[in-house]
Amino acid sequence: MTDFFAGIDPVRYGGPEADGDLAFRHYDPEEVVLGKPLKDHLRFAAAYWHSFAWEGGDPFGGQTFLRPWHPQDDMGRAKIKADAAFEMFRILGVPFFCFHDADVRPEGATFAESRDNLFEIVDYFGPKMEETGVKLLWGTANLFSHRRWMSGAATNPDPDIFAYAAATVKACMEATHRLGGQNYVLWGGREGYETLLNTDMGRERRQAGRFLQMVCDHADRIGFDGTILIEPKPQEPTKHQYDYDVATVYGFLKDFGLETRVKVNIEQGHAILAGHSFEHELALARELGILGSIDMNRNDYQSGWDTDQFPNNVPEVTLAYYEILRAGGFTTGGTNFDAKLRRQSLDPVDLIAAHVGGMDTCAAGLKAAARMLEDGRLEAARAERYAGWESAEAKAMLDGDLAGAAARVEAGGVEPEPRSGRQERLENLVNRYL
Amino acid sequence: MTDFFAGIDPVRYGGPEADGDLAFRHYDPEEVVLGKPLKDHLRFAAAYWHSFAWEGGDPFGGQTFLRPWHPQDDMGRAKIKADAAFEMFRILGVPFFCFHDADVRPEGATFAESRDNLFEIVDYFGPKMEETGVKLLWGTANLFSHRRWMSGAATNPDPDIFAYAAATVKACMEATHRLGGQNYVLWGGREGYETLLNTDMGRERRQAGRFLQMVCDHADRIGFDGTILIEPKPQEPTKHQYDYDVATVYGFLKDFGLETRVKVNIEQGHAILAGHSFEHELALARELGILGSIDMNRNDYQSGWDTDQFPNNVPEVTLAYYEILRAGGFTTGGTNFDAKLRRQSLDPVDLIAAHVGGMDTCAAGLKAAARMLEDGRLEAARAERYAGWESAEAKAMLDGDLAGAAARVEAGGVEPEPRSGRQERLENLVNRYL
Amino acid sequence: MTDFFAGIDPVRYGGPEADGDLAFRHYDPEEVVLGKPLKDHLRFAAAYWHSFAWEGGDPFGGQTFLRPWHPQDDMGRAKIKADAAFEMFRILGVPFFCFHDADVRPEGATFAESRDNLFEIVDYFGPKMEETGVKLLWGTANLFSHRRWMSGAATNPDPDIFAYAAATVKACMEATHRLGGQNYVLWGGREGYETLLNTDMGRERRQAGRFLQMVCDHADRIGFDGTILIEPKPQEPTKHQYDYDVATVYGFLKDFGLETRVKVNIEQGHAILAGHSFEHELALARELGILGSIDMNRNDYQSGWDTDQFPNNVPEVTLAYYEILRAGGFTTGGTNFDAKLRRQSLDPVDLIAAHVGGMDTCAAGLKAAARMLEDGRLEAARAERYAGWESAEAKAMLDGDLAGAAARVEAGGVEPEPRSGRQERLENLVNRYL
Amino acid sequence: MTDFFAGIDPVRYGGPEADGDLAFRHYDPEEVVLGKPLKDHLRFAAAYWHSFAWEGGDPFGGQTFLRPWHPQDDMGRAKIKADAAFEMFRILGVPFFCFHDADVRPEGATFAESRDNLFEIVDYFGPKMEETGVKLLWGTANLFSHRRWMSGAATNPDPDIFAYAAATVKACMEATHRLGGQNYVLWGGREGYETLLNTDMGRERRQAGRFLQMVCDHADRIGFDGTILIEPKPQEPTKHQYDYDVATVYGFLKDFGLETRVKVNIEQGHAILAGHSFEHELALARELGILGSIDMNRNDYQSGWDTDQFPNNVPEVTLAYYEILRAGGFTTGGTNFDAKLRRQSLDPVDLIAAHVGGMDTCAAGLKAAARMLEDGRLEAARAERYAGWESAEAKAMLDGDLAGAAARVEAGGVEPEPRSGRQERLENLVNRYL
Ligand SMILES: [Co+2]
Ligand SMILES: [Co+2]
Ligand SMILES: [Co+2]
Ligand SMILES: [Co+2]
Ligand SMILES: [Co+2]
Ligand SMILES: [Co+2]
Ligand SMILES: [Co+2]
Ligand SMILES: [Co+2]
Repeated sequence: MTDFFAGIDPVRYGGPEADGDLAFRHYDPEEVVLGKPLKDHLRFAAAYWHSFAWEGGDPFGGQTFLRPWHPQDDMGRAKIKADAAFEMFRILGVPFFCFHDADVRPEGATFAESRDNLFEIVDYFGPKMEETGVKLLWGTANLFSHRRWMSGAATNPDPDIFAYAAATVKACMEATHRLGGQNYVLWGGREGYETLLNTDMGRERRQAGRFLQMVCDHADRIGFDGTILIEPKPQEPTKHQYDYDVATVYGFLKDFGLETRVKVNIEQGHAILAGHSFEHELALARELGILGSIDMNRNDYQSGWDTDQFPNNVPEVTLAYYEILRAGGFTTGGTNFDAKLRRQSLDPVDLIAAHVGGMDTCAAGLKAAARMLEDGRLEAARAERYAGWESAEAKAMLDGDLAGAAARVEAGGVEPEPRSGRQERLENLVNRYL
Repeated sequence: MTDFFAGIDPVRYGGPEADGDLAFRHYDPEEVVLGKPLKDHLRFAAAYWHSFAWEGGDPFGGQTFLRPWHPQDDMGRAKIKADAAFEMFRILGVPFFCFHDADVRPEGATFAESRDNLFEIVDYFGPKMEETGVKLLWGTANLFSHRRWMSGAATNPDPDIFAYAAATVKACMEATHRLGGQNYVLWGGREGYETLLNTDMGRERRQAGRFLQMVCDHADRIGFDGTILIEPKPQEPTKHQYDYDVATVYGFLKDFGLETRVKVNIEQGHAILAGHSFEHELALARELGILGSIDMNRNDYQSGWDTDQFPNNVPEVTLAYYEILRAGGFTTGGTNFDAKLRRQSLDPVDLIAAHVGGMDTCAAGLKAAARMLEDGRLEAARAERYAGWESAEAKAMLDGDLAGAAARVEAGGVEPEPRSGRQERLENLVNRYL
Repeated sequence: MTDFFAGIDPVRYGGPEADGDLAFRHYDPEEVVLGKPLKDHLRFAAAYWHSFAWEGGDPFGGQTFLRPWHPQDDMGRAKIKADAAFEMFRILGVPFFCFHDADVRPEGATFAESRDNLFEIVDYFGPKMEETGVKLLWGTANLFSHRRWMSGAATNPDPDIFAYAAATVKACMEATHRLGGQNYVLWGGREGYETLLNTDMGRERRQAGRFLQMVCDHADRIGFDGTILIEPKPQEPTKHQYDYDVATVYGFLKDFGLETRVKVNIEQGHAILAGHSFEHELALARELGILGSIDMNRNDYQSGWDTDQFPNNVPEVTLAYYEILRAGGFTTGGTNFDAKLRRQSLDPVDLIAAHVGGMDTCAAGLKAAARMLEDGRLEAARAERYAGWESAEAKAMLDGDLAGAAARVEAGGVEPEPRSGRQERLENLVNRYL
Repeated sequence: MTDFFAGIDPVRYGGPEADGDLAFRHYDPEEVVLGKPLKDHLRFAAAYWHSFAWEGGDPFGGQTFLRPWHPQDDMGRAKIKADAAFEMFRILGVPFFCFHDADVRPEGATFAESRDNLFEIVDYFGPKMEETGVKLLWGTANLFSHRRWMSGAATNPDPDIFAYAAATVKACMEATHRLGGQNYVLWGGREGYETLLNTDMGRERRQAGRFLQMVCDHADRIGFDGTILIEPKPQEPTKHQYDYDVATVYGFLKDFGLETRVKVNIEQGHAILAGHSFEHELALARELGILGSIDMNRNDYQSGWDTDQFPNNVPEVTLAYYEILRAGGFTTGGTNFDAKLRRQSLDPVDLIAAHVGGMDTCAAGLKAAARMLEDGRLEAARAERYAGWESAEAKAMLDGDLAGAAARVEAGGVEPEPRSGRQERLENLVNRYL
């Protein structure tokens, strides 16, 4: 047990006018929207790393947080950390959590020690999950923090490190499987390059492709039937990461025959760093059939790095959930808060309040998106804009050849007049659901 | 005939110490490098649009250039423009040029008029090309300037506009074919969206895919055996363009079965706007087997739009040509200057001098790249870094399964020590060839 | 008279549930907030240029809008344009408008002709302003579109162009004065450089300083007692503009003794291009005592150019008005929509609806900001954070010297413990007023 | 003594064709350029922090470097670190170094301990400086890494932290003075804000102004006659830093009466993050009379954070030194390498080679700049462009009033014709000196 959050009661829904930092104003887990309770739409998960493993450092300063589980090099303190984590999950009422191996266990002196530490914590998690009902949305391996990964994991110039990555992912996937994880995520933070001058990009890409195939095969072998997810990010920590964005990952999956086997976990912050809106990445993944899960946060548009802030802009979040709802909502996926406190937010209550604000923002966004979808006016406008393509002639043209399509124009009389795209009216329409 | 460039003699190679604005200091077309004359390595092309159709406007100001062929709505003046263009090609000694239909002919009141204007100019080009020996690197259709294209061409919500695009591309491809063009380029400047709210991205993507298939089939039908090229760009004019970057185009080509049929024309400025270095895009295209041709320019890294400046940084250009040489150099492709004068550079001599500087920058870069490749130290360092993968065990591991790769680590004894990536030493090495 | 907006009735406040594109849901001009009607808080102005002079072009395409007043080179059509403009002002119920000389009159063949055209239009505006009650928020001179300004106006290398700028501003200021304008704005779109290589930055800065002094003196001389405003922008059209941002303008004003004479007109889009949030620029100007007026729009954070979109994000706008309210609100300033339709929004109703959405967004934002200010919790938290500085000792320390401040620490016992910055809790608090 | 760099001989100038990683090809310290040896132009300094205190961490990974002086919490190891540092200075032949207190001494449990540690190291440095002839370019206080500074130093909401900053700067300035430092630098890495919501910007700005006044007064009091320098940076670690860029610092200095007392230390990377070219910041500082010293590095234009890479692009560096030479060169300032190895560059030789490459890049750049200045063609072109302003009439107009300037135009006959800015020709000209 831990008294880290002593005095903080479980957060309850209190309605829009509820007072205080620690009440939900929009998130009523049982509220039914589009035929489903909010909790089943949103499928919130808390991320172990930002809230419990990160110590508040940034490139210009070290630790700001002082936690009872610091320093994080001891199994006993790892359990205190786990106690605090599950206490937070309980207070927030989140149905899921997510973790990397390195978040939850001390690094060992050898691979075997690290793995044994991991499984000891897995065993420690079991009863806690049972007791609280909190489930594992996904597990993942941290293949980027230790210095051995500095030049990549699967894409490393050293085959021994590829092997080490294989062993690590194998262990993490087994841990995930044991804990009933619904997905397994791969984020290739160091699968990229710092300079092309020392990089064999073709070779590294093939290594990455083979690795992913091996991971998928292994999942099948052990009977893990959760979803395998890749999390795209364009850069940071490296100058260029191979899983740049959804479109890039799609081409990669196609190349290795995995486009129906692997899906994407899309992070708002990573979308922005890649020059896309979050809703763009979501819509594209949906259209390509690879939308899996999301990492919810916000990124400062004016900071060129991954700020991983808690979301607080309802209009922005609304557009994201709208694309998710259009995809039919989450199946194994969910809304994982890949978000961290600002390093000046030192207090335990900051950690709770930040999640409360984020959950409320998401709930308000999803409800607005649902209203918009139910109302149907936006979709009607979209359909109307493309209505010309529903004619038999238009369909035939699309199935025909260039000369056929050209013929009508060449015959004269087709001098098409453009029609208004009505963007501002549609933007105004969206605002009416907020 | 035109006296637009009166008094400007053909530009000659004068050696590094040559004086004046109008001599090549690095570009000796006949200089043999890696067994081939420079002119056959670089395959320079001048772009009709920037030098002859653009009037100097920007979003905050109108025309600054006063040219004898303005206003550009008359066939007689289009011929004066052609005279000046070929005069510039002759002065520069560029072996190629490139054009859009809209650059060379006045827009007609109808499709038929526009097309007839185009072919009239094609007929006017013929003897000029014969006489000067200047060839067509590629032709293309301008599917973005006229208001009919404002919501896209192939991806337009209106099937009539798709048809109009088909007729236009058919005409331009025929013009290109007639003039012996070595490639045909598609740049989808309006194939994208301004807002997701009014966009059916999946549908538009399918329209684009079908259109490209139809274009390729038509090329086969008419016996055009040049290369079909897509030119990626992430955004501008639209908020998002479907041909975002090389990786995105690759996924798209795979989806429509065109990855061995279509290649890419990579522009430095577009690479930068997509968050990539030029050499990244070139290397990636090479590894994916879709490297076709380049649009050479430079982009101001600190301006968030397409500045299309003439290249002037030799170290930067060197890295680009290094990747091209590693790919075996150009076949049908070449170095097209998709570069324009700053709008304050009013004089005819500015136009010549700008190209001279750009050509010299490219020649200096290519020669440095060739020295680097011939010397072999950079490639030796790269190979050495990955040498571990050449062992039979490593190859077997890559062909094996995850459990096999993991087994060695699980058995203990593999605790890999990272090795220096030596980036700064390699950067210094590159500087030694400049 | 014009029937351009035929069938569009004046827009009325219909309450949050009002239906249709053309009703205010948040902007009730007479609603009293913080003791003042909304209309007097917001002081909306429509911008002549975007709505009536811009033809829909962008760097890759020409005119998309077809208006009865095109082409804009004729005085008769300039009056039709004015009719339409005032019709829009009437429909929207905006109390103000803003214009550049070049927006409202055809360019003449000579300065005298251009000036006479301007005053003819000024005379045409007079009765319209009388009749509609619409007032002039500010006038300004377009010193950037015509080719003569390509290398700057006041900062031009050619003194004749400086003189031309002087004559132009003199005429525009007189026009503004005659129409009872409440401010006069200078935006130095070409007062900057494209390359340092041809630029004498010190000299140009002095020219700009003298010009501004001359403008201020002239205002005094003619009895214009409106506010003189500089509108900062970092770049675009030029590579670098001298009026980069609020802090830069402040240093410039200090240098020329104008920091109490001249204020700033801050545009959201320009703030963003300079790497700042809008609220940053507003707060800084307030603290420096130079906050004058605002150009309201939004900028796409992911497009590196000035997108001048209508605002639609209420949380964002709330933070802006909060800083304005903290400054005591506008005096001569107001909320000018420096926003334009997307070029695909072709219809007259798009123009009205876009403004309606923008006005509603601003009204909702201002009302939320007012609630936040009235409630006082945010200000209380801010005051509490700095409370330590209210002690006599702290104040004395600030008035003392370094050794004195150091002495307490050197004496031992001062090992300060940081306190939480509570950012997330404050962000959540803000969301409660929305 | 240390054998960290065992086997690495002092680096010598070997001429352009010298072989190996460890020879200067461009930097001959004694080569006379514009009447002064290169070493006196460039005044190279090595930065203690990046090379000896930074352990290779980034936001996603920890230490990669393994150094004999790790962990850095022990005075004995701090001396081993100092031994290695001076060994590197000797090998490189740099005449200067720079340091923060936190680089060179272990943090103590109290202020007194930290200070005493500092002075113990100062005493350890003394004989080393004597022996090697290496001098101190500047000292500075690290007011950003320890958690006490998380909300700022001089601008902290807690006056005790202001006091702690005062004591710290007092100690660092005394250390700098004792070691004969030629400048004292203040970089306000945490003097800014993470969110406006909890920030009193006006108050913090006044605190910063008073602090700087106190620092200057204290320098006078102790007889430190080196230059006081502010190092601007726009953001990172904070969302916004008050010393944003040169123009911002200038306005701040004016406000507190320090514009003739304090100068700026301009870093290439910070210039770029602020949206400026390095040469812009240098030229502006020169024109404002506040150019002091430089932090030389390069920043990846495509990474939105401070990459602090060693410079390697000669054309870029040339433009920077050109502005410095135009300012008359350095007086107390110099070229400090605020540059760090990539974290994969693990070996001691990487550290030496990186500096060698950087020094050679600077030397090549400075020599090209000197040739360009001596040749005079660029300056002649600049002067010619503004020649019109040298006439008596033009000067009188600038001293006159708006009506006077306007009168000539109003009288008719002044319809100025723009002249070419010749940008490309000037860019080509620059390339001729490289
Ligand atoms: Co994530
Ligand atoms: Co992130
Ligand atoms: Co191009
Ligand atoms: Co371009
Ligand atoms: Co504006
Ligand atoms: Co704007
Ligand atoms: Co620095
Ligand atoms: Co830096």
